[in-house]
Amino acid sequence: MATSASLDALTSKLREIHHLHDAAAVLSWDQETYMPSGSGAIRAEQLATLQTLAHNQLVSLEVESLLGAFVDIETGTVLPEHQSSLDDTSQALVRETWRDFSRAKKLPSSFVNELERESSIAQQVWVEARKTNDFQRFLPNLERLIGFKRKEADYLGYTDSPYNALLDTFEPGATVAQLRPLFAELRTHLIRLLDQIRNSPVRPNTSILTQSFDTTKQVDFGRLVLKQMGYNFQRGRLDLSAHPFTTSFHPTDARVTTRVFDNDLPSCLFSCIHEGGHGLYEQGLSARYYGTPLGETISLGIHESQSRLWENSVGRSQAFWKYFYPKLQQTFPEQLGAVQLDEFYLAINHVGPSLIRVEADELTYNLHIMVRFEIELEVIEGQVQVDELPDIWNAKIQEYLGVTPSNDAEGVLQDVHWSFGAFGYFPTYTLGNLYAAMLFHQAKKDMADLEQNIGQGNFQPLKIWLNDRVHRWGRQYSASELIQRVTGQTLTSEAFIKDLEEKYGNLYQFSTPPSSKITP
Amino acid sequence: MATSASLDALTSKLREIHHLHDAAAVLSWDQETYMPSGSGAIRAEQLATLQTLAHNQLVSLEVESLLGAFVDIETGTVLPEHQSSLDDTSQALVRETWRDFSRAKKLPSSFVNELERESSIAQQVWVEARKTNDFQRFLPNLERLIGFKRKEADYLGYTDSPYNALLDTFEPGATVAQLRPLFAELRTHLIRLLDQIRNSPVRPNTSILTQSFDTTKQVDFGRLVLKQMGYNFQRGRLDLSAHPFTTSFHPTDARVTTRVFDNDLPSCLFSCIHEGGHGLYEQGLSARYYGTPLGETISLGIHESQSRLWENSVGRSQAFWKYFYPKLQQTFPEQLGAVQLDEFYLAINHVGPSLIRVEADELTYNLHIMVRFEIELEVIEGQVQVDELPDIWNAKIQEYLGVTPSNDAEGVLQDVHWSFGAFGYFPTYTLGNLYAAMLFHQAKKDMADLEQNIGQGNFQPLKIWLNDRVHRWGRQYSASELIQRVTGQTLTSEAFIKDLEEKYGNLYQFSTPPSSKITP
Repeated sequence: MATSASLDALTSKLREIHHLHDAAAVLSWDQETYMPSGSGAIRAEQLATLQTLAHNQLVSLEVESLLGAFVDIETGTVLPEHQSSLDDTSQALVRETWRDFSRAKKLPSSFVNELERESSIAQQVWVEARKTNDFQRFLPNLERLIGFKRKEADYLGYTDSPYNALLDTFEPGATVAQLRPLFAELRTHLIRLLDQIRNSPVRPNTSILTQSFDTTKQVDFGRLVLKQMGYNFQRGRLDLSAHPFTTSFHPTDARVTTRVFDNDLPSCLFSCIHEGGHGLYEQGLSARYYGTPLGETISLGIHESQSRLWENSVGRSQAFWKYFYPKLQQTFPEQLGAVQLDEFYLAINHVGPSLIRVEADELTYNLHIMVRFEIELEVIEGQVQVDELPDIWNAKIQEYLGVTPSNDAEGVLQDVHWSFGAFGYFPTYTLGNLYAAMLFHQAKKDMADLEQNIGQGNFQPLKIWLNDRVHRWGRQYSASELIQRVTGQTLTSEAFIKDLEEKYGNLYQFSTPPSSKITP
Repeated sequence: MATSASLDALTSKLREIHHLHDAAAVLSWDQETYMPSGSGAIRAEQLATLQTLAHNQLVSLEVESLLGAFVDIETGTVLPEHQSSLDDTSQALVRETWRDFSRAKKLPSSFVNELERESSIAQQVWVEARKTNDFQRFLPNLERLIGFKRKEADYLGYTDSPYNALLDTFEPGATVAQLRPLFAELRTHLIRLLDQIRNSPVRPNTSILTQSFDTTKQVDFGRLVLKQMGYNFQRGRLDLSAHPFTTSFHPTDARVTTRVFDNDLPSCLFSCIHEGGHGLYEQGLSARYYGTPLGETISLGIHESQSRLWENSVGRSQAFWKYFYPKLQQTFPEQLGAVQLDEFYLAINHVGPSLIRVEADELTYNLHIMVRFEIELEVIEGQVQVDELPDIWNAKIQEYLGVTPSNDAEGVLQDVHWSFGAFGYFPTYTLGNLYAAMLFHQAKKDMADLEQNIGQGNFQPLKIWLNDRVHRWGRQYSASELIQRVTGQTLTSEAFIKDLEEKYGNLYQFSTPPSSKITP
């Protein structure tokens, strides 16, 4: 019979496996920040070895036997004798470990290797194809990759749609049946709001944000904001990289990066706040359960909720800038000394359709996501052919956003995700926005003085609230369980739409007709 | 029978194992350069996992079987059928692989783990003991570690002295019987030269080197020198760390670090040149044989010969500064504008007994090494007790250098080496100096215009000569074979002593009495 000693043995084995993932994460961080330009090829090999080893260790007989002491290895059900002897936390630990184990077990090692190699090649081809604006060049790789992903879905198993199996990798529990109506409703509101904004006489002066701003000062200001948010620099770092990201090797070492452009103030600023939200989640995980699912983040959607909550609900709020704007003016007196807070606040919240997802505003961003979701769903389900993608892309972008890419580089080739086989990833961005709004609404309910505190630069109560309600639980609860526990509600877009309506109604001076309001 | 396919299989397995060492090296580099202060504990665990895995893979049945197709696994002799079928290079590959395999195989996994843990603890205790100047605190850990190292020598096997087994780890083939007379002769000359320098009326003005020098400019100058030496920044980097070091993850990614102090110009400058020499060796290894012994450096002594050749034979030469001094003056016009080249050249070559090894000059450095060699030899052979070390240390330093530490922090506790169990490491520093002088003499013989080129800042011929004669061979030859091949001589201290006599005779204005001259 399994004992606490054998639970320790399982935990200790999981930690060892996690060290390999951590090592790979350090190598990846290094690759994006400091690695010399000439050593990309060997780094890919080193990473592949670490990942293969970690995979092989997870599906090893040793893990199977340690895990089999607690659960039925075929079904994942906790064995009857442990249903009372194990507390909820330990049951969650073995249940989630089994989830990882059984998913990994379903994928043959040779398949994992082939997919890894195929992705690695496809990514390089994509870089070239985007550079030369040549979809045809990427097409055969993309076709093969999609073949692999369908096969992966078959290995993993699914109900209704093969897309569900892929989605489940990034957002456990999410399904097409859940997302379709959720996104459809959201879309209606977003398009209505976008129309209202288009018809508004208000024209934000975004040129104040594209003056020349010293890049060192920008990064220093980002660091200041991060510190104030409660991001711990004894347990993390801020570096520069081509694309901002967060990575973690342990709660004591969770790092963020940003990028910085001389003539684009929001880029560095909001990247810092966004990644800071991710970083706080990673720093807030339990060190005690490090290496086990209870020391891991729940899903990409919940991860994104943390970054979006800080970036948008906090970082684009009036209260936040009431506190920070005078400091920003002091940092850039020439550029912003004569710009009023209201003008700045309007500029950083301006909305406008655009072609590039990563440059999109808080509102239209989700329309970009929907385009991708619908396309990847159809292509994985085989309803469209891969060579039709550019046309479908352009048509949908025109339909949703009213703009049309002039070439594939600013169209179907713009994102890296598909090139490394990440189908089912995109929806988590919008889920993150919805979770963020729900969590922030609840935080305001729980802390009547939240906005007042933010206005005074006191982010400690919000950080602690998130640590307590979200971070420290790791994967003890699923995304839907967590949201239910914290907010008492199931996932909806209400809170998010309400926030947009309020914010943009005020900024763009329109009122929402009662008929279109959502009844809570 | 083994085929070229099975040699490929062996090579490919070795590469995979090497990826784990590379990953550990990246994690160590990160630890010394950018890692947040709060994550030391987890990093130690991550490193231990990678090292244990690499060890286990090397001694695995898979490697044994792949290797056994080519060599007698008990003796390492290449099997008769392969003595003609394998070329010299392939024979060296399997022979050296067997050396690593059989050494690793002799050490039980549990012993490796215990030693690893013991070293890790001892190192932390040493840090505290040095800080508080408290040898007694470190004593029990040091005693245990020495016990472990004696046991390690027993596992590895040895003739004459257990110290030989440890020395062999760092300098394959070197023995006490070889080092004793070599060092004894060297010592006689060094002490004589030191006396002559002491009695010289010449007093270098070292205060010109301890003015205030902008640290950013110092590092930029170091980078300039590295580039000029031929160190490739597309395949390496220069960063700051508490102690300068070189690390490599592949010939395309061999990094160096330096340290920099406002009031110590030589520190950053010569660290850059020194590490640059190491870095050129690593960048000059064969990428084709990466992961196998033929893609690895020969020994610590040969490694050190590369750093010392650049640091001392090149970097402290008149020709070098003929080229670089005007540039250095341009960088620091206020501090050096009025200082003549001769005065500067004398100052960077000044000799004087001191207490701290890492701050010692080119000459007295080797006396520091001899003190350590003699002590660690006696302690490993059990001729002295560990608690006697502070007194023995102080007596020897007084005898060799004429100075006495005022406390153990500047005495027996000053070096990190023993705290991580590196007994047998120190002699390689002096071997490096001797090899460096021999190689540089040969380089001058082979290239009549070498000094002229150096005086014009053209280091390319020397770099290529070192690439060709030393770097590219990896471990195809042992240290003694390589030196014999390149210089036609066996290891002696002649070239080194000759260089010192010439340089210091000129600088300190003394001539060496003919009686003490070495007859070549």
